[in-house]
Amino acid sequence: MTKSLDRKTAQREALIEAAERIIGAQGLQGLKARDLAHAIGCSLGGVYNLVGDIDELILHVASRTLRSLSEAMTAASHSDMAPEAQLSAIAIAYCRFAQAHQPLWRALFEHRMGRDKTLPDWAINDQLGLFAHVAAPLRRLLPNADADSLNLLSRTLFSAVHGIVWIGLDEKLVAVPVAALEGQIETLVCAACRGLAEEKAFSHSRGNA
Amino acid sequence: MTKSLDRKTAQREALIEAAERIIGAQGLQGLKARDLAHAIGCSLGGVYNLVGDIDELILHVASRTLRSLSEAMTAASHSDMAPEAQLSAIAIAYCRFAQAHQPLWRALFEHRMGRDKTLPDWAINDQLGLFAHVAAPLRRLLPNADADSLNLLSRTLFSAVHGIVWIGLDEKLVAVPVAALEGQIETLVCAACRGLAEEKAFSHSRGNA
Repeated sequence: MTKSLDRKTAQREALIEAAERIIGAQGLQGLKARDLAHAIGCSLGGVYNLVGDIDELILHVASRTLRSLSEAMTAASHSDMAPEAQLSAIAIAYCRFAQAHQPLWRALFEHRMGRDKTLPDWAINDQLGLFAHVAAPLRRLLPNADADSLNLLSRTLFSAVHGIVWIGLDEKLVAVPVAALEGQIETLVCAACRGLAEEKAFSHSRGNA
Repeated sequence: MTKSLDRKTAQREALIEAAERIIGAQGLQGLKARDLAHAIGCSLGGVYNLVGDIDELILHVASRTLRSLSEAMTAASHSDMAPEAQLSAIAIAYCRFAQAHQPLWRALFEHRMGRDKTLPDWAINDQLGLFAHVAAPLRRLLPNADADSLNLLSRTLFSAVHGIVWIGLDEKLVAVPVAALEGQIETLVCAACRGLAEEKAFSHSRGNA
């Protein structure tokens, strides 16, 4: 019993890795159940014994991508940096990760669940965890902002950088050279930080600290 | 001869409109040549007499979407507004358009050309035209920035707003309520404008003007 469970776990892991390789090479549209079955040496039905459906499989791959991305952002950032510098460093790390793993990264945002299917809570939390990287330095930048404002602003600043990277790397829109792209990210993040820190609502008592 | 050309033009227009309806209702993945042929009452081969391939058809739909989007941004913006206010108004108009036409808007950014196919120049220009809306107010905000910096910054600011809207409207990431989303766009745009205007490189002689 345990042996067969172990075997199933190992096969499931192999399936997720095969899916990761295919998405990493060809993007989401390259993912076919037939090829997955072939890659792990099982029948088509065997694939659906390991995961509920292809959406669930994609979410497991996304979870791994998000974990690596999160590690890259953590490694680039130290809490002894000035908040603006830390936010810039996180944003540049995001850009570099996206560039190095473009198809897996794009898949995070392009994947849509099939009709009438909802995202499991663990997958939502995986994704919302990205915004958390921004929250700590933002709290230091805006000591008077309340928790709700900080949450929302973290998402906003993350999303702004995400948009710059998404459109910046898009070959279809004539990609921006990498050095220029990183320069733009830094310019925008620093300008936004400067502007936010001056906003009365977020830091009016900063001078009194 | 002219009559048959007119007929072909009209049929092509009907095909683009049918594709627009399908993408508008179901997104890019809903687009099937078979359904298009049925919608305009021709054979499958007939579809490919009217457009080179489905990629080209999608680009024609994108061109229409970009035209409406551009009109919406123009209508929301007046050059007698303060530059920050004008940039905010353009960004809010972008957000509202995206929300009202989500599948067509998402298709603009999700569509990838088939392997080894390049985007025609007209389609590139269509897309880059979006950034131009931001350039005029940005030029007024940063009177000392050179043309290259302004071009790049226009793309960056547009992309930042795009990212906030993309992730903000994403049901998968728990969409942000619309009023909050518009508030966040305004906060980010105004903070970035304030920060940029203080940047020496862009406006150091502003005080002397």
